[in-house]
Amino acid sequence: MKKVKNKAVVLLSGGMDSAVTLYAAAQENDCTALIFDYGQKSSKETGCAKEISKALGINAFLLDISLPWKGSALIDDLREVPRASTIAGAGIPDTYVPGRNIIFLSYGVSCAEAIGADAVFIGAHQLDFSNYPDCRSEFFDHFRETVGVGTKTGADGNSIKIVTPIIDLKKSEIIEMGMELGVPFELTWSCYRNGEEPCMECESCLLRAKGFAEAGVPDPLVV
Amino acid sequence: MKKVKNKAVVLLSGGMDSAVTLYAAAQENDCTALIFDYGQKSSKETGCAKEISKALGINAFLLDISLPWKGSALIDDLREVPRASTIAGAGIPDTYVPGRNIIFLSYGVSCAEAIGADAVFIGAHQLDFSNYPDCRSEFFDHFRETVGVGTKTGADGNSIKIVTPIIDLKKSEIIEMGMELGVPFELTWSCYRNGEEPCMECESCLLRAKGFAEAGVPDPLVV
Repeated sequence: MKKVKNKAVVLLSGGMDSAVTLYAAAQENDCTALIFDYGQKSSKETGCAKEISKALGINAFLLDISLPWKGSALIDDLREVPRASTIAGAGIPDTYVPGRNIIFLSYGVSCAEAIGADAVFIGAHQLDFSNYPDCRSEFFDHFRETVGVGTKTGADGNSIKIVTPIIDLKKSEIIEMGMELGVPFELTWSCYRNGEEPCMECESCLLRAKGFAEAGVPDPLVV
Repeated sequence: MKKVKNKAVVLLSGGMDSAVTLYAAAQENDCTALIFDYGQKSSKETGCAKEISKALGINAFLLDISLPWKGSALIDDLREVPRASTIAGAGIPDTYVPGRNIIFLSYGVSCAEAIGADAVFIGAHQLDFSNYPDCRSEFFDHFRETVGVGTKTGADGNSIKIVTPIIDLKKSEIIEMGMELGVPFELTWSCYRNGEEPCMECESCLLRAKGFAEAGVPDPLVV
């Protein structure tokens, strides 16, 4: 008898990390993707996310959630996306978007409760990353506890799980995992800018390039 | 010399609780209101919230955030808003909206970081309430910790404060506090339904009526 899969919600940005996370989640779960248009300059992202969910044949919600107060170089036309070389090593860069993962996860939990999913997957990782505070294990641990006490399912003892399958992987390991899972990396988009081709200057492009180089495979986007 | 007020973000629904919270916050802070259209049937709410912020002369952001997965009688046309008498005493009623306060607070924190506010005010209270898990102190305590570790301001040691000035007040005490602060209760709307007049059948109407009765003052909406 075919096992009925559990439902899961997956936050899908269109980048490679969330694509790998989706393919990992889909191994064991019936997935619904949440795609966010939050006014990011790299508007290609959401198109990629739609293509990826189509490739996998899953349902997706596209949510148009503007953040009118801006507060980040990723969404404010008055602030330029910095070149990676101008980013200070230990600080939080200007590409940080205030409250982004808290907002995304909150929508994920809302969706999960409403559709009867028992988990929300997010492709954050805290190695080879941009020092964003909302990508660290500690943040997800506290968010899990918040969801445990602040939701109906939590009160019922069936709190929505917050799953971070790639949290402790290096970028190259994420790529290797994606290769095994058959992730269509050619459909992913990482660049923070909105060019026809990746700019290869922003931090996201450089982290991606470093990952593919370390994994020893070519990036289909730049071949 | 006139003291420069701190900036604060206030979640403003158009109901009486958030109106009282706004007027309390405005005593000491330069307030920005966030008003959410999340597809609630009581669409009068957002209009009231706009009027209240106009009466106080403060900035307001109206955010259109649909929850396409519904999951609540407050937003799903296929589910009727229950009469208060049909609500089981101890359970969480069908008017619970999955993840609502987590989403609202997340936007509040995002806005606060972006505009340089140091607090987010929310008018939740855990007495005379509908048993919503995201209105309890325990939830706010965990959310505070999440914000402390998951934001730039938190990482910098200046975490956004989550302030709940009426959390432990009875409905009648909230009304008394609002009377002292000069809250225009005639501009507030509590009914979960979308009639010309309050339905006086839903739980929100009944809790409001009980509050005004206990405070010994007439509700300007039903006089």
